[in-house]
Amino acid sequence: MPTSAPLDRLRVVLVSTRNPLNIGAAARAMSNFGFLRLRVVNPYDPAFREARSAVGASEVLAGAEAYQTVAEAVADCALVVGTTAGRNREFQHPLRRLEAGSRMIRKQLASGRVALLFGSEKRGLSNHDLSHCHWLMQIPTSETNFSMNLGQAVAVSLYELVRDSKATLKPEKVKRATSADFDRITELLLDAMLASEYLKRRPIADVDERIRRMVRRLNLPARDAVAWLGILRQILSKLRSGA
Amino acid sequence: MPTSAPLDRLRVVLVSTRNPLNIGAAARAMSNFGFLRLRVVNPYDPAFREARSAVGASEVLAGAEAYQTVAEAVADCALVVGTTAGRNREFQHPLRRLEAGSRMIRKQLASGRVALLFGSEKRGLSNHDLSHCHWLMQIPTSETNFSMNLGQAVAVSLYELVRDSKATLKPEKVKRATSADFDRITELLLDAMLASEYLKRRPIADVDERIRRMVRRLNLPARDAVAWLGILRQILSKLRSGA
Repeated sequence: MPTSAPLDRLRVVLVSTRNPLNIGAAARAMSNFGFLRLRVVNPYDPAFREARSAVGASEVLAGAEAYQTVAEAVADCALVVGTTAGRNREFQHPLRRLEAGSRMIRKQLASGRVALLFGSEKRGLSNHDLSHCHWLMQIPTSETNFSMNLGQAVAVSLYELVRDSKATLKPEKVKRATSADFDRITELLLDAMLASEYLKRRPIADVDERIRRMVRRLNLPARDAVAWLGILRQILSKLRSGA
Repeated sequence: MPTSAPLDRLRVVLVSTRNPLNIGAAARAMSNFGFLRLRVVNPYDPAFREARSAVGASEVLAGAEAYQTVAEAVADCALVVGTTAGRNREFQHPLRRLEAGSRMIRKQLASGRVALLFGSEKRGLSNHDLSHCHWLMQIPTSETNFSMNLGQAVAVSLYELVRDSKATLKPEKVKRATSADFDRITELLLDAMLASEYLKRRPIADVDERIRRMVRRLNLPARDAVAWLGILRQILSKLRSGA
């Protein structure tokens, strides 16, 4: 098992969970594998903290942070990974199997925060939720019954993260941009697309989500994010003054 | 994943389970990972086959075999493995971590039946149950909260059995942007930085090289390069017409 510091950088984010017992079950699995930081976005039952399924994990539930939006819940994370059971959707994101994805998450955890998102029991993560993710991770389930119970999916994912006790945690040297950086770049780029009349000439359906995804696919170091923000701000200000 | 024949040789044996929902959850996890043969010994609720938690796994539940004793439930198996979360008991049996134990189970499944036993939610497997086991297997949970939910323990154990470390990872299908794409983006971005007077306000030494390197760090998919080029062209044309 990695030392506690890297594990402490993982945020398990449960989005639009219907059944509070599943939130409790997720908390229990977290506690079993040494993860303590739970975030819930828009849970169906605001009284989820009382879920009796969180055996031995009352601290995880009590300390859970509640958010209205995915954007807020992942704002301080350098890597945002969505989980999916889906087989037929057309994904806009790279899809990685649990093992390969976990290796990448472990690497990132050595130096920065990672959010691991789980969608609602019925529908999983929405396209809007997915637009906040850098890539997706899939548990290798059977083709005939691929959809897992939420608590079980959390347990298997976290097990895979701590499984390889020998996995050396070499910190990545470059600090990556955070989700909040990506959101600011997205916003400025959208404004520039409007101000330059790009969107008038070439209207795009779901433009906010598409651009948010496109910006997230940029592999930005934190210091490059600062440079891009400065350039975009100046371009936008000039576009507006010239119009 | 192994071919279906070896998986078909595993018997998941739930001993003295209290909550029928946990039997359903175990059935669901089995179905998720391609295991179909469930055996229950002395369940608290004889109506366990109606457990609604067995989403997508009604066949597993319907086909479950019920026994009065562990001895009968494992009689036809060449290897019997007990699972335990226990830390303080004096075990009479070899205790293996999940990964090492799973390797041995996979080997045995190539030629014969294996029973994997899970005890009751409160007490786990009794000493009498354990006396039927060849050895014990333990999921590497945290010292402070080691006891897992039954359905989650089944899910993690079966995941480890089908997880194939040698599974070939499909190469990334996304076509990456070429050097020529990066050069065009660099050129447009430099032009926009000039036209927006960014460079007048904040002169940068070796600006061509620095921006070229910054753009190259973006690691763009080819189709995104096309989108970025279009956006930058339009922004530049607007900057120039407004100036």
